[in-house]
Amino acid sequence: MTETSSGAVLVLGGARSGKSAFAEGLVTASGLLRHYIATGRAFDEEMRERIAHHRKDRGDGWVTHEEPLALAARINEMARPDRAVLVDCLTLWVTNLMLEERDMVAEFSGLLDAIKTAPGRLILVSNEVGLGIVPDNRMARDFRDHAGRLHQKVAALVPEVYFLAAGLPLKMKG
Amino acid sequence: MTETSSGAVLVLGGARSGKSAFAEGLVTASGLLRHYIATGRAFDEEMRERIAHHRKDRGDGWVTHEEPLALAARINEMARPDRAVLVDCLTLWVTNLMLEERDMVAEFSGLLDAIKTAPGRLILVSNEVGLGIVPDNRMARDFRDHAGRLHQKVAALVPEVYFLAAGLPLKMKG
Amino acid sequence: MTETSSGAVLVLGGARSGKSAFAEGLVTASGLLRHYIATGRAFDEEMRERIAHHRKDRGDGWVTHEEPLALAARINEMARPDRAVLVDCLTLWVTNLMLEERDMVAEFSGLLDAIKTAPGRLILVSNEVGLGIVPDNRMARDFRDHAGRLHQKVAALVPEVYFLAAGLPLKMKG
Repeated sequence: MTETSSGAVLVLGGARSGKSAFAEGLVTASGLLRHYIATGRAFDEEMRERIAHHRKDRGDGWVTHEEPLALAARINEMARPDRAVLVDCLTLWVTNLMLEERDMVAEFSGLLDAIKTAPGRLILVSNEVGLGIVPDNRMARDFRDHAGRLHQKVAALVPEVYFLAAGLPLKMKG
Repeated sequence: MTETSSGAVLVLGGARSGKSAFAEGLVTASGLLRHYIATGRAFDEEMRERIAHHRKDRGDGWVTHEEPLALAARINEMARPDRAVLVDCLTLWVTNLMLEERDMVAEFSGLLDAIKTAPGRLILVSNEVGLGIVPDNRMARDFRDHAGRLHQKVAALVPEVYFLAAGLPLKMKG
Repeated sequence: MTETSSGAVLVLGGARSGKSAFAEGLVTASGLLRHYIATGRAFDEEMRERIAHHRKDRGDGWVTHEEPLALAARINEMARPDRAVLVDCLTLWVTNLMLEERDMVAEFSGLLDAIKTAPGRLILVSNEVGLGIVPDNRMARDFRDHAGRLHQKVAALVPEVYFLAAGLPLKMKG
């Protein structure tokens, strides 16, 4: 937890808080080659619309990868000193892991290792989901717990953390 | 989005975060005539109680207007150089627009124009609603999306933005 | 509301935001004797697991008290100049009061008096729950209102307030 990754950033925020646009701005500002890892899966029309909408917002000049599960391996594969890799988002990855009943401890540990060793810039976007009323169902509570624990681990590791609200970044670390 | 309104403020926060009291304090501190635009509609007893409670908290010296839908027109009508106009709140206005199936793009655009040209002080209160678990129903998800997009647009336009928690303001911009 | 308690701190945050660990760090850093007041009641297996998990995280060197309801009296009894007392958490206490249909105004007033007069260090942990979609049921809405009002009162009283996200503290006051 004391080791610090050099080029990684965590961008946290609520729904429609502007976190993806802010993260894309960090990538563009880096001047590096732009790679995008989408963790969401298009199960239904609404999700397809949201993904298409995000892709349109990003514009040209991006190489897009879809990776719902093997995120650590994909980061290891994609990260290069001349690339900025944007992962959008960790919470959808957690959802996918839960649906597949993966071992969260092992998965999180693998991701942290990938973050530690990634060259270039690595921008991780995630949703803060723990600031509402306790959800009625156990799965949603477990999801909040997993997401929150992952955010703590990633935030302890990376040198820069932002919290977004209304499109405005608040620097929490760095 | 680069044009900046001179006297407008966005006050964001959660339920019972003290955002209305903080916004009222901004109005009082301005020394201007106090106008209040309430966007909420009293559908039921609970809502009537909440509105009466807010009105009692404000005390005397306010002129209160009720405007559930035509917010831009009402701001255009009420704003004067010698007045501070408090709008409470944008999220209830978004709810009303959705229930009436209005064109959100046109409505938001109209509001942004009204904010840009309003003389005097204009204080806009809104609820941050995007930091909990993704809601089960589509309408609640759409509401979160509309509210979040509106917050981003307003925050980009106005020179001052605050985020309230436990009655304490955090300056996000300005 | 203008009187200020000398050694009290409010630690607010979402689920799994790291607020308990941060609060425990404040206690340890004080060098005082460590006392812990747990307000949660173990109704079911999940809650028992969560409580056991918290206790294990704290480690040795703590005296633990369980107090679901008479929190003010317990603080009056436990607080000493050579002790740091951690209350985890106010929101579970509010839940317990609601289930027992207690008079919230009187209970909150009693707690505020206990905070004002407590010698030593007093660290109060609480969940921010007002930043999601408005809940469907009245009891959850009332809970949000009670919790939010209590947070405002406590935050106005104590000299230090932190908001935690992803394990990172944001100083709101002090």
